[in-house]
Amino acid sequence: MNFLEERICKDGVVKEGNVLKVDSFLNHQMDIELFEKIGEEFKRRFSEEKIDKILTIESSGIGIACIVARYFNVPVVFAKKAKSINIDGDMYIAEVESFTHKCKNQVIVSKKFLNEGENVLIIDDFMANGCAMQGLISIVNEAGASVEGIGIVIEKGFQAGGKIIRNLGYKLESLAIVDGMNAETGEIQFREQ
Amino acid sequence: MNFLEERICKDGVVKEGNVLKVDSFLNHQMDIELFEKIGEEFKRRFSEEKIDKILTIESSGIGIACIVARYFNVPVVFAKKAKSINIDGDMYIAEVESFTHKCKNQVIVSKKFLNEGENVLIIDDFMANGCAMQGLISIVNEAGASVEGIGIVIEKGFQAGGKIIRNLGYKLESLAIVDGMNAETGEIQFREQ
Repeated sequence: MNFLEERICKDGVVKEGNVLKVDSFLNHQMDIELFEKIGEEFKRRFSEEKIDKILTIESSGIGIACIVARYFNVPVVFAKKAKSINIDGDMYIAEVESFTHKCKNQVIVSKKFLNEGENVLIIDDFMANGCAMQGLISIVNEAGASVEGIGIVIEKGFQAGGKIIRNLGYKLESLAIVDGMNAETGEIQFREQ
Repeated sequence: MNFLEERICKDGVVKEGNVLKVDSFLNHQMDIELFEKIGEEFKRRFSEEKIDKILTIESSGIGIACIVARYFNVPVVFAKKAKSINIDGDMYIAEVESFTHKCKNQVIVSKKFLNEGENVLIIDDFMANGCAMQGLISIVNEAGASVEGIGIVIEKGFQAGGKIIRNLGYKLESLAIVDGMNAETGEIQFREQ
């Protein structure tokens, strides 16, 4: 088990309905020392790629992306999930269906902040069915930029997202892939990587 | 002018309706090197305070809070703006009115992540009328924790938020206080600090 899998076993909580709660260290309370290990590990896994910018999506991706960005010395852009009156001008917009919230969101990035030819690393905390990720990829492609890699902290391996993204040929690195969970025993099966 | 005021003059855009757009470096695209300077500066201004935890609010506070947290070696908790099915158990809830979005939000923090006796530093990117801040303060007080300081990146000094929070006796440090803006000339007046 790597450092993240160990932490998930220690502090993650399995709930009915294939819910894995990691809100004590990842997506409500955030352990910045852990985020630094995550940043180091993504830098190791994407050491061959030239990265100009990190793209993530609000809200829980932002903190991780900002710490990861320190290891790549690049700025972060976060996609917004709803139209804000503070965004004007031209925007890239993709429609995204959320697994956790069971609703559709528009994912929005200002055209000013994604440029043709830029090499983008996409970072997010979770991937399940991968809809948010598909929206981000679509926006990067629309901008004429290039998805050089996708770094996910926890992938739900029993849902289709990871398979779809890998089938599409993207370099997807998930630091922990959960292949099964048992809400009664609290057991979590990780995929061997 | 300090480093932040200089950056605001260089890359901020003044729009009609007292809107200051800083989305190229602060709250859409995020300049992590700038965030590190912000972290250093907050650490300097709150060097006398014992801080156990940083509290912020989604979305644009999160990235700054995570980088600032590195200078205090503490975890970050971010308040959520809408009830999520991934939050269960007991929650602190405060009602907050947004200036930018002209709507009411519930600000929510899980009771697990704010404990009696904890010393909290609240960090956010913007303060205008201070409603979000009032919600965060109310939640910290409800938890029996203590607001040791409030660090704001940009305060709109011509709105009431800062005065109210200072009147309440809190140690509020704003790295830039904008006392006036002119959308025609693009001029920005900063308060001498």
